[in-house]
Amino acid sequence: MIVLSLPGARHFRLARRLQAMPGLVGVHRFPDGEVRVSLPTAATGRDVVLVAALTPPDDCILPVLFAASAARDLAVTSVGLIAPYLPYMRQDRAFEPGQGVSARYFAAILSDAVDWLITVDPHLHRIRSLSDAFGVPATAVHAAPLLAGWIREHVAEPLILGPDSESRQWVASVAELAGAPCAVFSKRRRGDRTVALTLPDLKAHRHRQPVLVDDIISSGATMTAAVRALWRAEYRAPICVAVHGLFAGEAFEMLQDAGAAAIVTTNTVRHPSNAIDVTPLLAEAVLARLRSRTTPGRQREEVAGEHR
Amino acid sequence: MIVLSLPGARHFRLARRLQAMPGLVGVHRFPDGEVRVSLPTAATGRDVVLVAALTPPDDCILPVLFAASAARDLAVTSVGLIAPYLPYMRQDRAFEPGQGVSARYFAAILSDAVDWLITVDPHLHRIRSLSDAFGVPATAVHAAPLLAGWIREHVAEPLILGPDSESRQWVASVAELAGAPCAVFSKRRRGDRTVALTLPDLKAHRHRQPVLVDDIISSGATMTAAVRALWRAEYRAPICVAVHGLFAGEAFEMLQDAGAAAIVTTNTVRHPSNAIDVTPLLAEAVLARLRSRTTPGRQREEVAGEHR
Repeated sequence: MIVLSLPGARHFRLARRLQAMPGLVGVHRFPDGEVRVSLPTAATGRDVVLVAALTPPDDCILPVLFAASAARDLAVTSVGLIAPYLPYMRQDRAFEPGQGVSARYFAAILSDAVDWLITVDPHLHRIRSLSDAFGVPATAVHAAPLLAGWIREHVAEPLILGPDSESRQWVASVAELAGAPCAVFSKRRRGDRTVALTLPDLKAHRHRQPVLVDDIISSGATMTAAVRALWRAEYRAPICVAVHGLFAGEAFEMLQDAGAAAIVTTNTVRHPSNAIDVTPLLAEAVLARLRSRTTPGRQREEVAGEHR
Repeated sequence: MIVLSLPGARHFRLARRLQAMPGLVGVHRFPDGEVRVSLPTAATGRDVVLVAALTPPDDCILPVLFAASAARDLAVTSVGLIAPYLPYMRQDRAFEPGQGVSARYFAAILSDAVDWLITVDPHLHRIRSLSDAFGVPATAVHAAPLLAGWIREHVAEPLILGPDSESRQWVASVAELAGAPCAVFSKRRRGDRTVALTLPDLKAHRHRQPVLVDDIISSGATMTAAVRALWRAEYRAPICVAVHGLFAGEAFEMLQDAGAAAIVTTNTVRHPSNAIDVTPLLAEAVLARLRSRTTPGRQREEVAGEHR
């Protein structure tokens, strides 16, 4: 096995955990914006695991697709993709006729390129499982236990808060693993960057440390609205914990300015707030995937499907 | 037929010429960089012609692929793509082992998405014809007659000059159509942005107006070196004419500063220097493509292949 990392994706720790050869996909960018990838020829005859940061997605997709094709040209045994953050999963239906269902299209593009995919907590709503969208085995690993572990270790008497009712089940599982009570806001979205949140009744937990948890912080609008609502109601400054810290534009600064006591993310998207390492989850999933090939009849099995 | 333009691509003139319905592919960009496309539902049951600006390619590819998929979801009759400038054709072999052959990979990605492709003067060297790279019918239309027409109309006593020996055949055809003599520089490339040119013996043509012609101006290094070589040898300030004006970074300003008397391009890539309209060529190629479907046994025929 060889673990090849594209720019912006960690891999050495993953390679070591898998006892695999580490390597880099070289990405040269020409003056006109075209890219050229280069793979180590040591990949020939091996199982290739590509590790790619897919955000922002448009900048990253061609290097990933080209790397997968270049691997095939090197006569590798298989090509898998670890996309710790999987973009485009939120656009899972046409809200107006004629609107593109990007989640399905993006999954199809990746399915054409690689033999399997592993990601962390994809943001699935109407698509029930990754295997409904992908034509190749796709595994979703769950960071909830890692988030709960971080909270248990760093926060005394936490109160776990979710941003909306959609997240209730996931928030409850984090809270249970952290041994803490939980509640969710009610949320109305008014646009890409504007949301309105209503605070639940938390009087019984006023002495506790609020910990806001969410799967993605993107524009930061939801998390910031939650921080402000807690601030207005004179709760303690909350700690914000998320799986994927995308932090579009000034989202991180906005959240800091709103009064977050701390902002903590996993390293699915590289950011200074990364404090929770998902490498062990990814390594376990890779081994399960490659093992499943050797078990007849299990090759296309979906390892993990349900989410929230 | 419906002609749907992606952002940055002209289409109304093309639609009128084809007596087709014009329309737009709406592209919404979310704060995290993801895009969502929207197509007019009037596309249902029609032949769809997508017109896309594919430069810089990484920013443009997902909207094009998503638009093609969204068209399929609308139960259209066919989906074709006009990419007036086709990127990535220059990386047509692995110069080192492990290097990606982007031309082949990019062609495969497009071939998976659309039923046919039309482009203007793709920069093919070692790939002899588009059909060697594309899995669907792919037509290259040739702008040389339009360039020659512009020169005939606007330049008295032109001397047509090509940047390197590779371009000799193409430059000769432009010159012949323009009724002018021609010559080529000898060129050595020293990197992405550095080239060395040697002026041919032009003494017999010293009274003529030099017209530098090339298929692509990208970094502008080649064209600028040619302008400077003519300047040093005390020829008249040359007119620069190209099919595709990519003008990476400050390429256009660099070329102006080097002393180009005028810089003229076709509208395959939108730019203030556009002075030659390729719409008639594209319209003719679309009609030929759709006609060829009705002729049994000719569906996969390559309409135009040879280049240079």
